[in-house]
Amino acid sequence: MLRTNTCGELNINNVSEKVSLSGWVQKNRDLGGMTFIDLRDRYGITQLNFNMEDHALLCEKARKLGREFVIQIEGEVVERSSKNKNIPTGEIEIKVTKLTILNNSKTPPFTIEDETDGGEELRMKYRYLDIRRNPVKENLMLRHRVSTETRKYLDSQGFCEVETPYLIKSTPEGARDFVVPSRMNEGQFYALPQSPQTFKQLLMVAGMDKYYQIVKCFRDEDLRADRQPEFTQIDCEMAFVEQEDILNMFEGLCRHLLKEVKGVELNEFPRMTYDDAMKMYGSDKPDIRFGMKFIEMNEVCKQNNFVLFDSAELVVGITVKGGDSFSRKQLDKLIDFVKTPQVGATGLVYCKCNEDGTFKSSVDKFFSQEDLNNWADTCKASSGDLILLMAGETDKTRKALSTLRLHLAEELGLRNPQEFAPLWVLDFPLLEWDVDTNRYHAMHHPFTSPKPNDIEKLDSDPAAVRANAYDLVMNGNEIGGGSIRIHDKELQKLMFKHLGFTEEQAKDQFGFLMEAFEYGAPPHGGVAFGFDRLCAIMGEKESIRDFIAFPKNNSGRDVMIDSPSVIDEQQLTELNIKLR
Amino acid sequence: MLRTNTCGELNINNVSEKVSLSGWVQKNRDLGGMTFIDLRDRYGITQLNFNMEDHALLCEKARKLGREFVIQIEGEVVERSSKNKNIPTGEIEIKVTKLTILNNSKTPPFTIEDETDGGEELRMKYRYLDIRRNPVKENLMLRHRVSTETRKYLDSQGFCEVETPYLIKSTPEGARDFVVPSRMNEGQFYALPQSPQTFKQLLMVAGMDKYYQIVKCFRDEDLRADRQPEFTQIDCEMAFVEQEDILNMFEGLCRHLLKEVKGVELNEFPRMTYDDAMKMYGSDKPDIRFGMKFIEMNEVCKQNNFVLFDSAELVVGITVKGGDSFSRKQLDKLIDFVKTPQVGATGLVYCKCNEDGTFKSSVDKFFSQEDLNNWADTCKASSGDLILLMAGETDKTRKALSTLRLHLAEELGLRNPQEFAPLWVLDFPLLEWDVDTNRYHAMHHPFTSPKPNDIEKLDSDPAAVRANAYDLVMNGNEIGGGSIRIHDKELQKLMFKHLGFTEEQAKDQFGFLMEAFEYGAPPHGGVAFGFDRLCAIMGEKESIRDFIAFPKNNSGRDVMIDSPSVIDEQQLTELNIKLR
Repeated sequence: MLRTNTCGELNINNVSEKVSLSGWVQKNRDLGGMTFIDLRDRYGITQLNFNMEDHALLCEKARKLGREFVIQIEGEVVERSSKNKNIPTGEIEIKVTKLTILNNSKTPPFTIEDETDGGEELRMKYRYLDIRRNPVKENLMLRHRVSTETRKYLDSQGFCEVETPYLIKSTPEGARDFVVPSRMNEGQFYALPQSPQTFKQLLMVAGMDKYYQIVKCFRDEDLRADRQPEFTQIDCEMAFVEQEDILNMFEGLCRHLLKEVKGVELNEFPRMTYDDAMKMYGSDKPDIRFGMKFIEMNEVCKQNNFVLFDSAELVVGITVKGGDSFSRKQLDKLIDFVKTPQVGATGLVYCKCNEDGTFKSSVDKFFSQEDLNNWADTCKASSGDLILLMAGETDKTRKALSTLRLHLAEELGLRNPQEFAPLWVLDFPLLEWDVDTNRYHAMHHPFTSPKPNDIEKLDSDPAAVRANAYDLVMNGNEIGGGSIRIHDKELQKLMFKHLGFTEEQAKDQFGFLMEAFEYGAPPHGGVAFGFDRLCAIMGEKESIRDFIAFPKNNSGRDVMIDSPSVIDEQQLTELNIKLR
Repeated sequence: MLRTNTCGELNINNVSEKVSLSGWVQKNRDLGGMTFIDLRDRYGITQLNFNMEDHALLCEKARKLGREFVIQIEGEVVERSSKNKNIPTGEIEIKVTKLTILNNSKTPPFTIEDETDGGEELRMKYRYLDIRRNPVKENLMLRHRVSTETRKYLDSQGFCEVETPYLIKSTPEGARDFVVPSRMNEGQFYALPQSPQTFKQLLMVAGMDKYYQIVKCFRDEDLRADRQPEFTQIDCEMAFVEQEDILNMFEGLCRHLLKEVKGVELNEFPRMTYDDAMKMYGSDKPDIRFGMKFIEMNEVCKQNNFVLFDSAELVVGITVKGGDSFSRKQLDKLIDFVKTPQVGATGLVYCKCNEDGTFKSSVDKFFSQEDLNNWADTCKASSGDLILLMAGETDKTRKALSTLRLHLAEELGLRNPQEFAPLWVLDFPLLEWDVDTNRYHAMHHPFTSPKPNDIEKLDSDPAAVRANAYDLVMNGNEIGGGSIRIHDKELQKLMFKHLGFTEEQAKDQFGFLMEAFEYGAPPHGGVAFGFDRLCAIMGEKESIRDFIAFPKNNSGRDVMIDSPSVIDEQQLTELNIKLR
């Protein structure tokens, strides 16, 4: 071992011990007679002291050490004269008696400090230097703690981790697959799993009740910010359960994680139907850390000859507490914001509830003070508040107002990353209409079971069929989702039919699963958590990228290793493929 | 929950409790007035009792339940009249009051019993039924325990699990890569990792000392029995370490696993150099559960006008304790065995040490009783033993005798799977000559460091250069291997040169690593364990396949889901490739 101790563990109790440390030169301060070096490793920072009087040669050697040089030292732990209370080793330093340079370093392309001068691309190219920075390192350590505690909880509940294969079969349903040409099976391809969905269901048929896996999944989608082609899931499935059992089990997981990793005790998670979430927040993943719930205003807004409202399917508003103080300029900026393509609304109506009991709205021409007072009553707005209204086609208007609501909360500092507000959203629709393909798609996936009472509506009113499907939402992010699955072959067939599969297509793609259902498939259900997102939320950050050791950029490239890359002709030949 | 209890937990203490159970019908015995059903789930088996007198309808319904039907029952726990001491629930049964059929089952294609009538292919096609069988299920549970204990040990030692990417860069060095065409980067490909080697080294440069990961790896090699295209590794790396630190740390891991999972306490692991292993066992992964060490016999065998020996580079023997009793037929079979292509020897010389002190050899024409006595002395053979000798070119002869040694041990029942004999093999050669490509290859991989004193021999005598490389062997299997890595850019360049890389090739493929070495790379080293094999050995089995939930066959196919498969033209077009 090139050290007796790490750079994070020596303190006043170790004074006068002879130790050896190894690490990176974080800082080098030459004070003439003395040279101080901050030595850094994964565990912390320890100050080294080189003294001209005692060891002139050593001190001169130390002075020449550049940032990020790798050194090994021997010396004695001594008490510092000027202590640093901010770090665990701050009361001591090492009086160095021997110095070995283990490796040199060129000057790093950006500073290895908590606040760095390096831009995103540069930090990605030199990710191995970026990870030396505390914030990134700590994110990775947090990720490890979250996975450790996840396993601990699931193990304690009797779950068994089973590894499912990575080289599986491509299916056109869902997102686009990454595929892998098979050399030994000419003209054929494996696919990388978008999730272990069918395998975990087969494990339930196999009797491996209470399965879990922390597993990489792959989707070849056009990347938006904060979406990665490979991502990690906590994947779980249980047999002989009903929805309530799953909700309790995984609410327990979340509560365990927040408690053990963050020291936060969460109460019982609130629950909301999908319909209510859409109605009250315009979103199936509402951020409930703050209010501004939607209030539907058709009754008090229509029939006043204001065409925008009268012609609208829905008039809906939110109350901004204390928003009365918004300046004209601020309100104009909000109106500009809702007109951006991102929101796509045509306009925004406001009404200030003045301190003196009067109202000032942007539609005073059409609405009397009494009308506006009615608005305020409906919205439970008091003096000093601001009412914001949008109107139009129901779904679009809700979506636009939801975006505005989050924007306002952001501006008003209501989205506190240190606050954790979980929410179960239940009773999702089974199907959703897809305008591109002009047919219904499974909202969750084709294996999700419809609510038994709704099955009869599959033909008459497909959009009204609700599923035994649920999402776990945290701070406005979907962190997990799942469903009770279909375990009956006939029902699964019926589902495929309604999703537009021919019998042949269903058999070709999912025949193995339907066959498995003939050999005693138990009722089962499960859930999958987006592990990267969960870590980011627990790390109190917006971006998942800094919780992934080696992420890819928006073109799916790893700029550090410069991948993907061309492969040679011989490889292509062996794989029986060629480039177009 | 469709049960109050599992089928493995009720016992005499639960008598008179009202319970509900769910599971599969394992057995259905109709005794006229009574019907007994063994109900099975992941946790065990519980006997159900249906009584014609109490519940005639229920009993008749029960009689019709086929094997593997999925049912839910309610009833009362009662003490059994005839107890079964072999299972934890054997003292009780459930007097059933309600029976719900949750799903039917067709008759399974093979019996769901510990000893099944299903052949390998059939069991693979219906793997979800195969996993219902105790032996397979228990292998998967064992695998979970091994991974849990691995994490527990490594966590306790301060290791941090970091996930490395699966979509990486193809490199021609080593085995053949599986590749993944990139849709967004036309004409370019990702590769699936053969191991996270370069990433874990970059994590060391990144300061993430003490990394581990239990991770899938991929090799597109022609499959031999018991080799899978995707396999799992326990992958570890440490910074600021020397070889001794790694050996101690991972000897500790193995000892922990054997103790916690198997209840076996292992002593300090013996160590052996590669040279000694080859000399004494003809193998770099000797099975030391039994003796039959090689004895080099050149001195006592040559110069007796026996051409086979006189012309041989090496005459080498083993002593089979008690082998004197081998019949002529048995000896002939051994001779036939060594002549098979698998062994490839030209012959085998034997010498029986008779109880009366005389010797009987297959070469009595050339060797006197005194000569043979000399053999026996050299081989430390006593009366009743058998000496077996082979002769020829050193490497080939050692290899052949090693195969014979294992064959004999197998025949003699010396390879006890319940015995665990670990061994460190040290000081591997750095390079090995490859006859196909007519150049030296890295025996371990190109990042393994040569022993410092041997570096000067890289030019003069490459084959003599030893590496800081080590394997952990268990019962004749390599279960892990690793090395101290190169952390110096110039030495890494030199290695690439000696492996036949041009400077451009080295830069193109591993430029990112060599660049990383310029920014303060610490000394580091690590190890990787073959997790599938480790589980098989701990499960006291030869084959890894039954320790993998969904293995592939020898053509790399998953016969259950029928993968790989053709993909449609549109997918190919999007990926910018076509079939040849």
